[in-house]
Amino acid sequence: MSTTAPQETRHSLRPKMHQLATEIFEYFAQNTKDTEGVSRPAYSDIETQSLAYLDALATRYGLCVQKDTLQNSIYCLPEHATQTPYILVASHIDSVPQGGNFDGLAGIVGGLLCLIEAKQTQKQLPMAVRVMALRGEESAWFGPCYMASKALLGKLSREELTSKHKTDGHTLERAMQAVGIDTAPIAAGTPLLDTSEVYQYLELHIEQGPLLVEKDLPAAVVSGIRGNFRHKKLRCIGEAGHSGAVPRAYRHDPVFALADLLTRLDESWLTILQKGSDMVLTSGIVGTDPARHAMTRIPDEVSFSLDIRSQSIHVLNAMRALLREEMCTLEKDRGVRFELDEEHAVAPALCDDYMVAQLSASMADVVGEPFVMASGAGHDAAVFANEGVASAMVFVRNANGSHNPLEQMEISDFMVATAIIYDYLGKAHP
Amino acid sequence: MSTTAPQETRHSLRPKMHQLATEIFEYFAQNTKDTEGVSRPAYSDIETQSLAYLDALATRYGLCVQKDTLQNSIYCLPEHATQTPYILVASHIDSVPQGGNFDGLAGIVGGLLCLIEAKQTQKQLPMAVRVMALRGEESAWFGPCYMASKALLGKLSREELTSKHKTDGHTLERAMQAVGIDTAPIAAGTPLLDTSEVYQYLELHIEQGPLLVEKDLPAAVVSGIRGNFRHKKLRCIGEAGHSGAVPRAYRHDPVFALADLLTRLDESWLTILQKGSDMVLTSGIVGTDPARHAMTRIPDEVSFSLDIRSQSIHVLNAMRALLREEMCTLEKDRGVRFELDEEHAVAPALCDDYMVAQLSASMADVVGEPFVMASGAGHDAAVFANEGVASAMVFVRNANGSHNPLEQMEISDFMVATAIIYDYLGKAHP
Repeated sequence: MSTTAPQETRHSLRPKMHQLATEIFEYFAQNTKDTEGVSRPAYSDIETQSLAYLDALATRYGLCVQKDTLQNSIYCLPEHATQTPYILVASHIDSVPQGGNFDGLAGIVGGLLCLIEAKQTQKQLPMAVRVMALRGEESAWFGPCYMASKALLGKLSREELTSKHKTDGHTLERAMQAVGIDTAPIAAGTPLLDTSEVYQYLELHIEQGPLLVEKDLPAAVVSGIRGNFRHKKLRCIGEAGHSGAVPRAYRHDPVFALADLLTRLDESWLTILQKGSDMVLTSGIVGTDPARHAMTRIPDEVSFSLDIRSQSIHVLNAMRALLREEMCTLEKDRGVRFELDEEHAVAPALCDDYMVAQLSASMADVVGEPFVMASGAGHDAAVFANEGVASAMVFVRNANGSHNPLEQMEISDFMVATAIIYDYLGKAHP
Repeated sequence: MSTTAPQETRHSLRPKMHQLATEIFEYFAQNTKDTEGVSRPAYSDIETQSLAYLDALATRYGLCVQKDTLQNSIYCLPEHATQTPYILVASHIDSVPQGGNFDGLAGIVGGLLCLIEAKQTQKQLPMAVRVMALRGEESAWFGPCYMASKALLGKLSREELTSKHKTDGHTLERAMQAVGIDTAPIAAGTPLLDTSEVYQYLELHIEQGPLLVEKDLPAAVVSGIRGNFRHKKLRCIGEAGHSGAVPRAYRHDPVFALADLLTRLDESWLTILQKGSDMVLTSGIVGTDPARHAMTRIPDEVSFSLDIRSQSIHVLNAMRALLREEMCTLEKDRGVRFELDEEHAVAPALCDDYMVAQLSASMADVVGEPFVMASGAGHDAAVFANEGVASAMVFVRNANGSHNPLEQMEISDFMVATAIIYDYLGKAHP
């Protein structure tokens, strides 16, 4: 982790907004804390109370507060209450169990601060802006992710709606009803937000990787959200044998075949990066079978997961083909057999070029020069982007990753990212 | 598995010896059978009864039967009862739990058949021969291996003597005492066999790998027994992270580092083989931590075992150095850390050159041409060889590996191997 030297900014919000941000984050750190970190479960009373706190705060600062039919909160300047089209600045209020305080919340607070800054300085925003505090986004509670944004766009499936809470076993549908949502239109796939009124979608979020820490930058404009394809449990099947008695030429060793496969994929990964394309590749779960494996036994099987992500659908398709090709080669070369389980895939979501360019210009105005990067993690922005809404994101430097209590965002960095959005909103025009 | 076409042999034992072999193996298959395969536990009543059956059989065929102080059985022609030096033909009577019927037993039966053939055909063997049925050899019961041969040579350590039975928890010492052995001299490290009287040590054993099946050969002369060095649990420690959000350059991925390590070792393995040296390499246990791993998480650690074997101490030393060197390189290249647990090592045992040459000549006489191969598994022969006794082995083709109920040796192959030994014993001279 690097601590941030205060940035010399030409464009920034007033210092009292820094104090207000500190106060809001501190409120949530205290009032949603768990034994470790914070827990703000999706579609829970804690989530409702969290929104109530923000609603009251927005009201106190003279903003207009509305609720949509999904019990999301919407904040705007009074003059924008009915104006369309509008720029939607959104993020989610829920957290993972025992997570960090900033994942999701930062985006809502950033949007709110922009509205409060505009209100207090009587700045005229050229376009209407609505800040939305979305409810459930995290998959850690029920399984599906982006629940609120999918439901808004009529894209939350029946299967997702009836998925069960990981601990209490109640369905998402029941949890939604318990917080006052009529789930019938969701089940019917009815869009609950008129996207024709949404001019652009903008989301501020902490970075969940280490790039900004490593590059010593407070913020970044996001170029796109990586898509992925994943396998939870692939198997490489070989043939067991005595570790001392079987010569190399007669082995069917799945562990060496897997090592060879990962090394080949790694080489292709490097080549793809050298060509300037985007990709990440992870095999997070690897293991021989504890019921059978032994130090002196050539294993008969090893299972492993794969998670391959890229901003480019072409890279994903090429890697999917390469994976099968390499497996096929290794099956021949090493006398093993690969077994593929079901693939789960999500398409990449590209951020809107014009928005990226404009946000980059705003970032240059705020910190001197722009920095653009891909988002590896998924976000509500991807749901809107893939629905055809021009979308973009701004990342804030964050140490120690996300989804854990050690997640660490400096308020000074957050204020830089907020200033980028504020600058952008101040210059936006249809 | 390949089934054997009957071999045209110029030198063989009489067909009734084939029948006798079938009868003896059938007796053990029936009388030491377990729910699966056979179980002849080391230093057990079953082992005692097994020896009693062979003792009675040897007596019935006019051989001289003796017991040594370790309750091993010794068979010889009456005229050789006190003659020294002698060729010691030995193998073990015990099996692993639910193992195959031939591992160990085949070597005793082969030796016995040679003596019975000589007795019945009144063949004069030029040198005295003693066939020894050793008790405990398998490590599956108490942990230590080669218990009988180590104890004979005064090399069974106190720690090994007090090791506990894997299921009943009684010590090896107590089990030995229960079958009538005075363990005081063993504990004192007193040699119980005068190796100056042993001219040569010869052992027939099933092959525990697939080489003879693959090469369609009934038997082989063994050039040496691979030594090894092993690590039960090495660790590669990296840094956890979001599978989508951390670019390749900032990853410390232990799974990719391990894949790279195994691929590098595999390349060196190939080079070593191409240079004509002997080696096998196995990583039988590999795994990320089930308590922490996830498909979407860069793992922070992977553990793995290594078992590297070679007939050449130079290859083992070179691989030990290479392993450390590659780990060191990968630590730098991939930002991970390797943690080595304690190494366990066994020196290679070379078979006596002259015996290998003579046995090869005998094999040529029996089946037309000789075949020489390394033994990957350890054997009592290694204990004698490393004590300075000229030692050699003959392997019999065996399908499905050993230490399992599917172990499968054809009696016709066994008779070929026995004929090689019989031919050798008929030509031996001091």
